[in-house]
This record gives sequence, structure tokens and C-alpha cells, in this order.
Amino acid sequence: MTLTIPILDPAILAEKYVQQVQEEITSLGVSLKVLGLIASGDKPSLAYARATKQKFNDVGIDYDLRHVERLQLEKEIIAANEDPGFHGIFIYFPVFDNQQDSYLRNLVDFKKDIEAGSLFWTRKLYENDRYAMTENQAKKALLPCTPLAVLKILTEIGAYSLDAKRPIQGKTVTIFNRSEVIGRPLAVMMSNDGADVYSFDINGVLKFVDAEPHETSISRNDALKQSDIVITGVPGHSFDKIQGSEIRQGAICLNFSSTSNFADDINTCTDMYIPKIGPMTVAMCMRNLIRLYTNFSQAN
Amino acid sequence: MTLTIPILDPAILAEKYVQQVQEEITSLGVSLKVLGLIASGDKPSLAYARATKQKFNDVGIDYDLRHVERLQLEKEIIAANEDPGFHGIFIYFPVFDNQQDSYLRNLVDFKKDIEAGSLFWTRKLYENDRYAMTENQAKKALLPCTPLAVLKILTEIGAYSLDAKRPIQGKTVTIFNRSEVIGRPLAVMMSNDGADVYSFDINGVLKFVDAEPHETSISRNDALKQSDIVITGVPGHSFDKIQGSEIRQGAICLNFSSTSNFADDINTCTDMYIPKIGPMTVAMCMRNLIRLYTNFSQAN
Repeated sequence: MTLTIPILDPAILAEKYVQQVQEEITSLGVSLKVLGLIASGDKPSLAYARATKQKFNDVGIDYDLRHVERLQLEKEIIAANEDPGFHGIFIYFPVFDNQQDSYLRNLVDFKKDIEAGSLFWTRKLYENDRYAMTENQAKKALLPCTPLAVLKILTEIGAYSLDAKRPIQGKTVTIFNRSEVIGRPLAVMMSNDGADVYSFDINGVLKFVDAEPHETSISRNDALKQSDIVITGVPGHSFDKIQGSEIRQGAICLNFSSTSNFADDINTCTDMYIPKIGPMTVAMCMRNLIRLYTNFSQAN
Repeated sequence: MTLTIPILDPAILAEKYVQQVQEEITSLGVSLKVLGLIASGDKPSLAYARATKQKFNDVGIDYDLRHVERLQLEKEIIAANEDPGFHGIFIYFPVFDNQQDSYLRNLVDFKKDIEAGSLFWTRKLYENDRYAMTENQAKKALLPCTPLAVLKILTEIGAYSLDAKRPIQGKTVTIFNRSEVIGRPLAVMMSNDGADVYSFDINGVLKFVDAEPHETSISRNDALKQSDIVITGVPGHSFDKIQGSEIRQGAICLNFSSTSNFADDINTCTDMYIPKIGPMTVAMCMRNLIRLYTNFSQAN
């Protein structure tokens, strides 16, 4: 008897998308340049930043990684916004770990926001405006990179049916995280694709149906028992990790937090466990970079 | 011997500004209308909302106070943005008490944002752009209502010297709150006016000089001992209240949190204690409403 360990390496799934990016860059025949700004000095963060740089370099994108003081970030962003040499800006959060991080995120010119985490892009998603410039339907809007990475992974493992108009119609999903950059956009996107989505954060739960939120008082236990897909992204260590016994047998489990929000026994109960999504997120940032270039910089 | 209790009622200080608003409205000869949106159902919040409405009505401003479900707020804001019948929008926060509140705040059209708490206005302050439309120096930018209310109160009690270019040059100020809507703008404004400002939040402290932040490791104790003015705005009950013994004898103490961040013995050590600023904040919202009208609606 062979034991299949259903832990999925996102780097393997990301390869196809990275390959597509490389081909598009070759076909465009353009030199793209990204500014990466990191204010944190801790080793894992710096290692992650250098790994990102390497991935961009591997597909031929110039990536200027700068380690700066946090109080210099505002000036760096403003200068990069105005510098035509940069096509994209990537900031390693958290920086201040308070509302000022949201300020910094929105300081990035939307035309260079490869994470698509600024209000300009998330508002388009929430308001179901599919175009970068409302008046020009040839130029598509960007989608925030982490939610997009989650959907691409679900597509790659067959949880999204590609030939359907509503690719996860009839499925139930639970998401732990309702941030404006990841959790809420993801709930909107997945419910727009047909799922019933329970969206938990520290203050409670909402149910998203057809991209619209509704009040609900469902418990974590009941939501998990109903869910075909469970997605977690709670930072820090205060979250009560999800035990194998809590999920429905065979559910797909995906974690995008830097520390897993699932207990170690999750493998015994899931058909598929995706412990991290970083490489796919980076691939989606590259795609966004190309879309920003073709939307805003390319001569028409 | 007469005991002077140095507790200041902001409503009395606000009267002058409310009177000015009334005169300006009469002089403009215009009917102004504000939409107030409250999602909270608790009695003190509703009572506060009704009191605000009354204050606007008292100066002849039509104030449509609507009690709505929190999940309806987005649609209400979008509709009011597009409705030429409304000159201003006021939202009673907190609503979701997470990042979504910042989303809602920024959903308000800046031309109707009487609190001036959206990124459009705070960014102008941070970037020292004094004009509503950069190209038109006749139209002044708005300042966020709560920091502005604090400065007006300090002016009224003589802590700001009106005839100086730098009205609090040489003074030291400590502020507990570094939110993007109140604490950081206030630190920028007061340091721009000449003060050294220690700005504390849950993650630490920064020192603002000439509108620029600097890293510092000063303790709360040392900052308080040096401060001529102490300003607090920490919500909830986790803040370790400031004792009379912590402040410099004769310092001015001002609290803008809904529950005071000062211990009861503060009166024994301060020359002036301002326990709340609500009425002045409302007066500043009225001023902002008029400025929005003259900037964006009035025929030129």
C-alpha cells in the first residue's frame, strides 16, 4: 500500500504561470523593472525578499531590492511613483503594523501597484468594474495578487471547473481572514464564482453569496463541517489552529498565513493540503506587472 | 480661598465657531444638506448621532440622519456620492471595527468628506499641499476635523500664540494615538507649528519635528515629564490611564477618547484639563462643509 501525502508544493503549480510570464516578456520585447522595498531587518524577511528578487530576475525582470529605514518608505514610494524607470513597486509588509501600512499601500501609484492591493484596484473588484479605465474595455482591471493566487491554485488542483460559468457553484467555502487586501476580495471573488462563502475575522462572521455579504451567526464548527474548501490566513499565534477533526472528510485545506493555521493532524483528514502559496503569489505579481505595462506604458 | 476647577467645557469654546458658521451660511444664502449614516444600534451612539443632527439643524443645515444596517453602508455612500442633493456625508465609526472601516471612510467622495478623514485630504496634509486643487490656489485644502478641533481648543485657551509664525515653538507635546485620521495628522500639524511631538501607539513611539517623524526610544514616563501638553485618544479600556503624578506640574491635558485616558486625580496637577472635544469637532465639520461647498459646488 502506498501512502500518498496530499501536501502540495505551490512552486510546482506556479511554474506554468512563470513560464507564461517569461514568454509574454519575450514577446513584448521590453525591459521591465520593479522596485522592492523592505524595511524589516529580520533574517527570514530579508531571505524572502532576496528569493522574490531571484524569481523576478529568473524571468528577465530587473528587480531593484532596497533595504530602507521604515521612516524613509514614504519618500521612496513617492520618488518611485514619479520615476519612469520603474514599472512596478512591491512593498514587504508589515512595516509599521498599524493603519500607516494601509496608507503606504495606497501611496503606491495604482499604475505601478503589482500587488493590486490599493483602493483603486480593490474598489474596482468590489464594484464589479472589470476595466482598468472604465471607458476602455480593451484594458482589463488588475486583481489582488494573493486572492488571485488562491484561485489559480484551486484551478490547478481541479477544485475550480474551468468549463463552467460559475466554476464552484454549489460548493461551500470557509475563509479565516477578512482583510481588505486578501480575505474580503477573496470572499467576493469565490462567491461571485458560485460558492457560499463563510468569512470569519476576529469580530465575527459574514456569509457571501453572489459577491454580496449577509449577516449570519453560524459557528466556526458548523461552517467547517459544511465546507468543501477551508482557507486560512490569520497572522500571529493567537488563532486556535484548525484540527483535523473539525473539517469535513476530504475537504481541501489551504493556508496563506506565514505560520500554518492548521494543526499537524490536518493531513489525516484532507484530500489536499496546501500549506503555503507564496510562489503563486509572486507569479501573479509578475502577471500584474505585465498587465500594468500593457495597460499604461505600452505605446498603442 | 477660591478653588478653580480647571475643567474646560468644549461646547462653550465651540460657540464662537458655530456662530461663524451660521453667519457664513446666511451670507452664502445657500441650503446645505448633510447625510449622517449610523449603523450602530446602541443607545449612547444613537443619542450622540441625534445630538449631532440637532447641532447642524441649529445653524440651518439640513441633516438627514439615517440608521442603516452595516452591510447597507457601502450602497448608501455610493448613492449619496452621486446625489447632488447632499453636500456632505458623515459616518459614525466604528462600524465593522476592522480595515473595512477605512475602506468605507475612503469610499466617501472627497468633495463630500466633511470629516476630511479620507486619503485624499490626509495625503495633502502629509505632503504639505495646502490647496484643494493643486492648480487653484484660491481653494484651500481641508484639514481633518478632530486634529483641527484640538488646535482650535489650544488656540482658545492660549496655548497657541496666534501672532507667531510657529505658534507653539519650543513646546513639547505627547500624543497617545497615531491613527491615520487623528493621531498622525495631529503630530504632523503640531510639529509643523513648532512643537517637538512624541507620538505613542501600541507599537511604540516616534518623535515628530518640523512635520517629520524620527525614531526614538523615549519612555512614556520621560516623555510625559517633558511635556507642556498631553493629548490622549486611546479607545477601549486597555490603556494604562495617565496619573496626575506622571505629568509635569501645570501641563495642559486634553482627552479626545470616548472614555478618558486620564486618571481622576489629573485635576490636581494640570492647569487645564479638557476631558472631551466633541462639540468643537462638530463645529469643524461644519466649517469643512462650507469649505467643500465653496470649493466644489459654488458657482464661480
